[in-house]
Amino acid sequence: MRTYVAIQIFIVLIFSTMISCTTTEEYWKNRAILMKKDRRHALGSSLKLTKEEQKVNGILMNYKLREFDEGFQNPESFLAAKHFFEAKEGIEQSKVFKLIKKIPKGASLHSHDLALASNEFLYNLTFRDNLYSCVVNGELKLHFFSADKVNKFCNWSLVNDMRKQDPNFDNFLRSKLTLICDNPSEKYRDLRTVWKSFTNIFLAIENLIAYYPVWQDYFYQALKELHEDNVKYLEFRGYIPEVYDLNGHTYDAVEVVKMYHDTLDKFKRDYPDFIGAKFIYAPHRSATNNTMQQYIYTFRRIKKRFPDFVAGFDLVGEEDLGEPLSSFVPQLLELKSNYGANFFFHAGETNWYDESTDLNLLDAILLNTTRIGHGFAALKHPLLLREIKEREIAIEICPISNQVLKLVDDLRNHPGSIMIANNDPIVIAPDDPSFWGAKGLSYDWYLAFMGMSGRESDLRFLKQLAINSIRYSSMEDHEKSEALEKWENDWSIFVKEQLSNHCSANNEAIGV
Amino acid sequence: MRTYVAIQIFIVLIFSTMISCTTTEEYWKNRAILMKKDRRHALGSSLKLTKEEQKVNGILMNYKLREFDEGFQNPESFLAAKHFFEAKEGIEQSKVFKLIKKIPKGASLHSHDLALASNEFLYNLTFRDNLYSCVVNGELKLHFFSADKVNKFCNWSLVNDMRKQDPNFDNFLRSKLTLICDNPSEKYRDLRTVWKSFTNIFLAIENLIAYYPVWQDYFYQALKELHEDNVKYLEFRGYIPEVYDLNGHTYDAVEVVKMYHDTLDKFKRDYPDFIGAKFIYAPHRSATNNTMQQYIYTFRRIKKRFPDFVAGFDLVGEEDLGEPLSSFVPQLLELKSNYGANFFFHAGETNWYDESTDLNLLDAILLNTTRIGHGFAALKHPLLLREIKEREIAIEICPISNQVLKLVDDLRNHPGSIMIANNDPIVIAPDDPSFWGAKGLSYDWYLAFMGMSGRESDLRFLKQLAINSIRYSSMEDHEKSEALEKWENDWSIFVKEQLSNHCSANNEAIGV
Repeated sequence: MRTYVAIQIFIVLIFSTMISCTTTEEYWKNRAILMKKDRRHALGSSLKLTKEEQKVNGILMNYKLREFDEGFQNPESFLAAKHFFEAKEGIEQSKVFKLIKKIPKGASLHSHDLALASNEFLYNLTFRDNLYSCVVNGELKLHFFSADKVNKFCNWSLVNDMRKQDPNFDNFLRSKLTLICDNPSEKYRDLRTVWKSFTNIFLAIENLIAYYPVWQDYFYQALKELHEDNVKYLEFRGYIPEVYDLNGHTYDAVEVVKMYHDTLDKFKRDYPDFIGAKFIYAPHRSATNNTMQQYIYTFRRIKKRFPDFVAGFDLVGEEDLGEPLSSFVPQLLELKSNYGANFFFHAGETNWYDESTDLNLLDAILLNTTRIGHGFAALKHPLLLREIKEREIAIEICPISNQVLKLVDDLRNHPGSIMIANNDPIVIAPDDPSFWGAKGLSYDWYLAFMGMSGRESDLRFLKQLAINSIRYSSMEDHEKSEALEKWENDWSIFVKEQLSNHCSANNEAIGV
Repeated sequence: MRTYVAIQIFIVLIFSTMISCTTTEEYWKNRAILMKKDRRHALGSSLKLTKEEQKVNGILMNYKLREFDEGFQNPESFLAAKHFFEAKEGIEQSKVFKLIKKIPKGASLHSHDLALASNEFLYNLTFRDNLYSCVVNGELKLHFFSADKVNKFCNWSLVNDMRKQDPNFDNFLRSKLTLICDNPSEKYRDLRTVWKSFTNIFLAIENLIAYYPVWQDYFYQALKELHEDNVKYLEFRGYIPEVYDLNGHTYDAVEVVKMYHDTLDKFKRDYPDFIGAKFIYAPHRSATNNTMQQYIYTFRRIKKRFPDFVAGFDLVGEEDLGEPLSSFVPQLLELKSNYGANFFFHAGETNWYDESTDLNLLDAILLNTTRIGHGFAALKHPLLLREIKEREIAIEICPISNQVLKLVDDLRNHPGSIMIANNDPIVIAPDDPSFWGAKGLSYDWYLAFMGMSGRESDLRFLKQLAINSIRYSSMEDHEKSEALEKWENDWSIFVKEQLSNHCSANNEAIGV
């Protein structure tokens, strides 16, 4: 409280000096002080860079300011204000993006089981043997069968046969695995339309991924792609579909989670620098009381079996359409008090104000959520926002997702930008990278850096994002310390490598 | 400070009770308290309604909730989330809109001289005698001439002749008087494109309006349309074009402002309940030091001649392109200290963060601005925002303008929504209603009420908007008191009329 009062008094003094100033000299002096003080609130601004880091920052800001100021001059060229589908190629050419890819980014804390690995990997899975497809009302379904056990509920054909027979099939198949299209604003007029296509992708690919021989490969690949993007820890949501094999055998929830667990172990053996992953059980929110009882049952079992791997509980699906959290208060209280569930609720992923969707924020807080998924509407609720900040409930901001799924067109208008200006507890996450052709965390970091933070935000902002991702993870304190130590090591290697690369590039340029 | 501490303690107590609550009964009790407290921050929520007002509120909320909840169910039908060009007809059918039109709305504090009166009136002006048009590079110019004095700088033809000769001319002419088109998102891809068309309208119509016999009619009509929309006071920006007549005589700045002044007097004689109007001298921001000296000279003269009518100074034009305020610090300090100019600066009408445009906010505050035009970027500057609030510098929010001029697509994402949630000092204004087919203040109020405030915001919100419009006007204190008294009188008549209309309608419905 004392600090607060002191700051207030200081501000009053600054402004009273300022108001009385009439000379231009006084004006510029006060202006510089104020600007500096205003920027001191922003995410990352409290960090101090070492001399070496300052040099890397120089390289980064050289790239950033060139791109940013070119955008200010020619707004139509500014990538971070465009739709991701139209900006992606340009982003991949950006020197800022290339540098961000190399940064040790810490953790990725919000993504979903069936949309983790890249679209290219997903597409390549469709070349596997025994994969059948069928089309119902224009929507694709995929399923593996042994030839003698193809079910009769659909008009199944082998995907590899379809490819040979119909030269258009492959394009059709590809189009059903992502939301990518040429004119997204025309194809997806509103949130409901895009969510329909979005949900159809999940329905199409569920049994492509939930096939025993694929299931573990898929998760392994997801971890590998994060690792390649210099992300070393993952917390992801999964709804635990029924994994099956060609013999018609299905695996129950505990067995399915065990597959994740075992895959993670294998991955950590192959990549010993990878820190780990945790699982958030996140079934669909359009549930009944009975379904909720089944969710509780499943949660109890997986939590008991993998207490360290299963981090908590959430509900997923289009928030405006599904049941609000308030529909399941008794069950959620039970999950918490009887089975020690930590919550990671999606809440306020909406443009609506004072509808059931943004009121999920209220229930998420009342239920003592650990983090909030999206929280797009949080700024419209001042008391709740204050509580979010004071209790350091991190908000998981997913820039590309919010744009593609029609919450916001121009990411410079994303409320995350205001949260960044206020150093609110946020992390940046990719949500469903596979569905929009992204990969890893770098695309979202790039957009947060170029579109949501200011022209002056620099390496400290990115460093703070990495630190936040570990701080707000659900690791235990001792795990966090270890993770932070490993990340610091990676960070200093990154700094050294950048300096050395830059020096050699410069030396080459001047012929040394 | 004491109140602040008390509130903090209260919040801590509420939350600590809440966290320990495990029964659903406790949960619902705490939830209701929290929700109520969260909403108490919002604009209008501190007002108490009389019993009569509560009944009118009942009527209003009946209309609002029906429309709002229908929108939540079928988002594609929700008018306040659409582009204004696509929503306008629907808005005019809305019962909420029809009621808003009848509300005494107080004052309109941000609009521009050549875009004040309705587009229909502007179009009808083109039927006047002696009006010539010419087209240069596809852009229209209009000018009155006597037949013997048509200038040679353009290939002028009489508009009425063109109408007869070319059946398409009238559509072409209409298209050049507004931004309205069938597919705005396709035609206006970005801010720069739409601003080009926007500026071309000003260039096309300047000499249609700045013609001596039209000049006063136009302003009279603007006042009349506001009056019809139950707005009783106006503060508007004007850049004082050179008014001319058929004899080639031109009128200087003092004479032009005198025409406004005399027209206002005439209007007040015709409509004695109209409170008044004030003028903000607002020339173009793409200026040189020399031009600024001319502005100062003009300001001195008009302020000296009409000290009560001339409220202050501003600069206009596309903020991203024009000179920032910081380019003219010495001149602006001079205007303030030597000539007593109050400032009403456009500042932060931008999506950019930490570019010269949003940094105009810094200079506007340092220059002790009375209000801020748009302030779209203010939330990205926490220290500046705090200062804006503490000093009650009102932000003039122009919903339709910001949408049409490509700052934000879906008004539910407008930062004004967050300002409304926090009861920041805001007013709602129409900017350039003529150019997008709006009229008066009601369209913008409707969009603020349906798109930017929450589902629960009610008559208190609208009442507060009206009170704010008077409170944040630049009237002297005693003028404000009188204005408020007059408005209160209008308000109680409105309440009575609504109740009486509603009762007769109900009685009719039940056959009494």
